[in-house]
Amino acid sequence: MKLHILGCYAATPRTMTNPSSQVLEIRNHLFLIDCGEGTQVQLRKNKIKFSRINHIFISHLHGDHFFGLPGMISTFRLLGRDKEMHIYGPKGIKEAITLLLKLGDSWTNYPLIFHELVSKDSEVIFEDAKVSVETIPLDHRIYTNGFLFKEKVTDRTLNIHAVTKKKIDKAYFQNIKNGKDVVLDNGTVVPNAELSFDPPAPMSYAYCSDTAFKVEVIPQILGVDVLYHESTFLESESHLTEKTKHSTAKEAACIARDAKVSTLLLGHYSTRYKSIELFKEEAKTIFDNVELADDGKLFEF
Amino acid sequence: MKLHILGCYAATPRTMTNPSSQVLEIRNHLFLIDCGEGTQVQLRKNKIKFSRINHIFISHLHGDHFFGLPGMISTFRLLGRDKEMHIYGPKGIKEAITLLLKLGDSWTNYPLIFHELVSKDSEVIFEDAKVSVETIPLDHRIYTNGFLFKEKVTDRTLNIHAVTKKKIDKAYFQNIKNGKDVVLDNGTVVPNAELSFDPPAPMSYAYCSDTAFKVEVIPQILGVDVLYHESTFLESESHLTEKTKHSTAKEAACIARDAKVSTLLLGHYSTRYKSIELFKEEAKTIFDNVELADDGKLFEF
Repeated sequence: MKLHILGCYAATPRTMTNPSSQVLEIRNHLFLIDCGEGTQVQLRKNKIKFSRINHIFISHLHGDHFFGLPGMISTFRLLGRDKEMHIYGPKGIKEAITLLLKLGDSWTNYPLIFHELVSKDSEVIFEDAKVSVETIPLDHRIYTNGFLFKEKVTDRTLNIHAVTKKKIDKAYFQNIKNGKDVVLDNGTVVPNAELSFDPPAPMSYAYCSDTAFKVEVIPQILGVDVLYHESTFLESESHLTEKTKHSTAKEAACIARDAKVSTLLLGHYSTRYKSIELFKEEAKTIFDNVELADDGKLFEF
Repeated sequence: MKLHILGCYAATPRTMTNPSSQVLEIRNHLFLIDCGEGTQVQLRKNKIKFSRINHIFISHLHGDHFFGLPGMISTFRLLGRDKEMHIYGPKGIKEAITLLLKLGDSWTNYPLIFHELVSKDSEVIFEDAKVSVETIPLDHRIYTNGFLFKEKVTDRTLNIHAVTKKKIDKAYFQNIKNGKDVVLDNGTVVPNAELSFDPPAPMSYAYCSDTAFKVEVIPQILGVDVLYHESTFLESESHLTEKTKHSTAKEAACIARDAKVSTLLLGHYSTRYKSIELFKEEAKTIFDNVELADDGKLFEF
């Protein structure tokens, strides 16, 4: 599982900082999560192929998470895309994009499929044999969802050396991958454990931005491998969190601790602070395994 | 008159090139002309104060001229703007911006005043004591206007040394600026030319992008000091101009020559070419005084 941070700063694009956007590589999918202004340039800088993106998840319709999307959609057209593009985001996103395309008489020549979200409860919004994606209802000034990406348990991995040695016919392979023992022609039972390896442990990634401190997310994200949780402020500005519906680094760390996640990734920093290291220091007083997102940074988990 | 080129490349923002946007400094106004994605970052890079911009002119509603506007409007709010902002652009621009603000529940706390354009004839859309701005109807795939910025003739400049020496009372100064002679108490007539200097010659700037070759613009822009004319293509791609409604560098130069402008500024380059110098070479076969716009370049006229 890889995570490319394209932008992770709050509010407004600046010379050296970009608004929210990231690409999650998971089981051969490239999922684009949020799309602030400048995202397409960040994709180019990070050498991510536009053509590999087929699903875009938008948390909410504030500009710093969404104003890069109209340009992305136009650029996909200019690049000659013909594959479907799926966009998941709050109700209204279809009307907005459609209006912009209509005004420019710039309809896409690829199918643009909107999945508009309205539910206040978590729901599975994407699922295939390898991965599922569900919404994480958050607490922000407008309707906002985080997203929980979960790898599925896959088949066991065939122990090629062992099956060759025991001359086991290919016809048995799928059963072995499914965990079954093999009964040889002479009646001998070969235990599955001798013929296959455990599948890779399924990983999970939770994206929680933007949100005020919300303990209700904890049961849903319990034990995830990586939690990206917004930390717009430090505790010194905690008086701003209620009005703005953002979190502090300490609050993000409390969520990480109580949800027993493996790694906490902080982001969505207000640019009022001198150094983002301050966020890490604050979070580490609560939770040990803290990483700082930063524009252009690639994490491999 | 100063012109800051923020972006002058066609189609889509890239790592090193930006879509259309520029700032014209004219008689103490800062006019923002077009606003492709990334314009606000380009303003920062070029150290242009956001607060000095009160008028934004949008030529047409293709993304590369317009998708930076929603973010700009949000950023003005975050910067605490309270002054009016005037936006001039094709009908539909108000609906688009209003919808985006509504979806984000991010209404501005400053007056946002839209001047929607529908006329196919040129019209004066801004005028004060110092400057006028009129539309230049262009020929593009959708409704598009260029803009003609004209300084007005100002008062004559007082010759302080001369009026002091002749002990002329302040009460006469405005008459002198208006070009009148002064009759002294002893009946002597002092000719105006001895008491004042000619005012600065009024300058003019025409912005023509995007457009196919359109000779009908020539009478309107006759003799302007600077003509920015799009040159998306070279003549080698002239077969693309009819369908895309863009111009070649040679066509831009023909307009400049026939309109007897002082300087032709080329821009809106397709990124298919190795060097923008090729545009200059082609234009120079027709018209001598050619300059190349480029991102971050500042012209003083």
